Amino acid sequence: MAEVLRQLFLLLLAAKIGDEVFKRLGQPPVIGEILAGVIVGPAVLGWYEINAETMLFAEIGVVLLLFQVGVETRLHDLLRVGPTALAVGALGVVLPFAGGFALAGVLGSPLSVAVFLAAALTATSVGITSGALRDLGALNARSGRVILGAAVIDDVLAMLILAFASGLAAGNVALDELGLLVVVALLFIGIVLIGGTRILARRRSLLTDPVFAATPFLPGMIIMLGLAALATQIGLAAIIGAFLAGMVVGESSERHALEAEVAPVAAFFTPFFFGFIGAQVDLVGLADIGVILLVVGVTVVAVATKFIGAFFGAIRLGRAEATLIGWGMVPRGEVGIVVAGLGLQVGAIEGELYTVVVAMAVITTLIVPPLLPMLVRGASTSSESDARPTSGPTPGVEDDADGMPNARRDHRGPT
Amino acid sequence: MAEVLRQLFLLLLAAKIGDEVFKRLGQPPVIGEILAGVIVGPAVLGWYEINAETMLFAEIGVVLLLFQVGVETRLHDLLRVGPTALAVGALGVVLPFAGGFALAGVLGSPLSVAVFLAAALTATSVGITSGALRDLGALNARSGRVILGAAVIDDVLAMLILAFASGLAAGNVALDELGLLVVVALLFIGIVLIGGTRILARRRSLLTDPVFAATPFLPGMIIMLGLAALATQIGLAAIIGAFLAGMVVGESSERHALEAEVAPVAAFFTPFFFGFIGAQVDLVGLADIGVILLVVGVTVVAVATKFIGAFFGAIRLGRAEATLIGWGMVPRGEVGIVVAGLGLQVGAIEGELYTVVVAMAVITTLIVPPLLPMLVRGASTSSESDARPTSGPTPGVEDDADGMPNARRDHRGPT
Repeated sequence: MAEVLRQLFLLLLAAKIGDEVFKRLGQPPVIGEILAGVIVGPAVLGWYEINAETMLFAEIGVVLLLFQVGVETRLHDLLRVGPTALAVGALGVVLPFAGGFALAGVLGSPLSVAVFLAAALTATSVGITSGALRDLGALNARSGRVILGAAVIDDVLAMLILAFASGLAAGNVALDELGLLVVVALLFIGIVLIGGTRILARRRSLLTDPVFAATPFLPGMIIMLGLAALATQIGLAAIIGAFLAGMVVGESSERHALEAEVAPVAAFFTPFFFGFIGAQVDLVGLADIGVILLVVGVTVVAVATKFIGAFFGAIRLGRAEATLIGWGMVPRGEVGIVVAGLGLQVGAIEGELYTVVVAMAVITTLIVPPLLPMLVRGASTSSESDARPTSGPTPGVEDDADGMPNARRDHRGPT
Repeated sequence: MAEVLRQLFLLLLAAKIGDEVFKRLGQPPVIGEILAGVIVGPAVLGWYEINAETMLFAEIGVVLLLFQVGVETRLHDLLRVGPTALAVGALGVVLPFAGGFALAGVLGSPLSVAVFLAAALTATSVGITSGALRDLGALNARSGRVILGAAVIDDVLAMLILAFASGLAAGNVALDELGLLVVVALLFIGIVLIGGTRILARRRSLLTDPVFAATPFLPGMIIMLGLAALATQIGLAAIIGAFLAGMVVGESSERHALEAEVAPVAAFFTPFFFGFIGAQVDLVGLADIGVILLVVGVTVVAVATKFIGAFFGAIRLGRAEATLIGWGMVPRGEVGIVVAGLGLQVGAIEGELYTVVVAMAVITTLIVPPLLPMLVRGASTSSESDARPTSGPTPGVEDDADGMPNARRDHRGPT
């Protein structure tokens, strides 16, 4: 226990020093936290070793981040951007998947490797982009909602690809089982979203009716853990369950009390998530020119296919917003790492390709936040000149009565 | 990860249902949370299995609870009750230790068993009492401070006894090493408390000077984890480090922002601690009349010796306050369980005695909170009739400018 406390201390301290340095340099603090993880992790200093306990904190960190994002997202706003999100999600999966296959063909990899590489390229880490967009107060703009909706669709498709890849590695692919998986996943999302928000919209005090709950905070945490667990059980990512839980709980009458209480809990946990991502980097494995070239190749394919797919999916919103959305879908983050780890575990890919995919996941994660402020400004300027009040973080599009800006206040909640 | 999320969900849900039921019955919610842990744990339903991940949440839960208590405690208030706390701590260790030895003599146990039994009887779990006193808004009364101060002294002595017991089990007891341990522990406590509070008292904005910190919350969490880790490193309990960290950080100028942000984090984690304590109960091991008699005997000795020792240590404050303090020191909670587990690990005690000690720890924990409201009323009435304004939770004794009551608000923080 002493060792775990020491590691949690170290990771939190390092992440916050990274945050401090990057804020002072005017750069995205998320990047500072990830690089701090690289430095204290096995790649450089080796003070922090990856273990089950700190992994749990990292996982709860991203679960809380998406829960928080869910609380700030309303269902009808998400449904309004539904068709665009569907196009972005689908094209943003198909192109990277095809790119991964093509790349594996060039490398002469067998089919099982090709499928895992393709699966790792399709994954989108919505945690990174939504964290950075919250920092910019741009999460509730139309483009932020498209990215969130596309991420949900993306995850359903990624689950399908991963089940297919795992089946292929195990030697049997049952198409009827794959179909069942998708139906169950869509039913889960539909029932939770429509059913959950309906129930809470009808009785907005439901979460504060119990004697133990003066605010919806603890009931919300219970629902978050429950839906995150249920999502993983049916093959979806835990963060999708947490995001849905946040959207449902956000219907409560005491939503602002809830937000004020979720903020410090999320601020405590999320640095573990970002630091943990950095700690995955293996610099020793990258000390080979062949591997470096492979990383460059895989990363270029990953960025280009995802950006182009998502861009064309969102093109009807105009070039500026489509560029923001395409760029926002690029980070692979923890999802890419998890997929590669799964491939390693079932024996489909070997150590070197794992290192390459992790490096690609971290690089795609690091390059996105620095460009977001510019793209957000571009998207909001262009939509203003189009006289389209539904894009850009203007109070007019908020469905909140108070029009409170949803900026993340640097991870810190009530000040 | 799916399994861990499921278990966290289950434990939190169960604890909050226990909380709800006990609040509706007008009973202490802490007991409801512990009993919920008994029910979902291995003893009854077996839905929750003890594992490293949920243990970590339990540990962080009690660490946060003591941090929160530390934030609400001021150094000069603790020093003011210093001599009484010293007497309570010392007598509250000596008597149970002697009682444990006598009991082992009656049972005919060898010396190594006797020392571990005695060590388990001396342990005090300040988490339970301070949690219950916070619920009653009585933590800042003089008696609450005596209990907190005595718990710190208690832990230093318990560490000494445990080091002695472990040395005995390993076959060598080095007296000079024991002396060094105590010196290091006292230096740690002294330097952190006096040095830390001095530094912060001189520059109250220190924790909010970094750009990343608008409130002392995240710097406070870093210091809490660091001092908790350091405390365990030198042989003290993690909660002692967390308590000291809270006292230091509580000197910050932004203390109320800090309290508002710590509250939800503590409210999220502490149910795992109480539920976890309940889950330790092994009803199968207790299904033997001999074992039950042993539990009764050990529990009676544990309650009587701790109560009498602490009572006489505090007798100069009058009988009513001495009764409250004596009773408040009775819970053995997680500390007793940890000591017994250590004895099991080094082979000094066997499975049956372990079960007995755990049962004693849980029983002493369950019996304390129900009587506390009555004893708090008694102590505050008697001290009012003595015209002693320094006892009882009256605004006059608060060093806070605002005299805000420190009630725990049912785990919930800002409402």
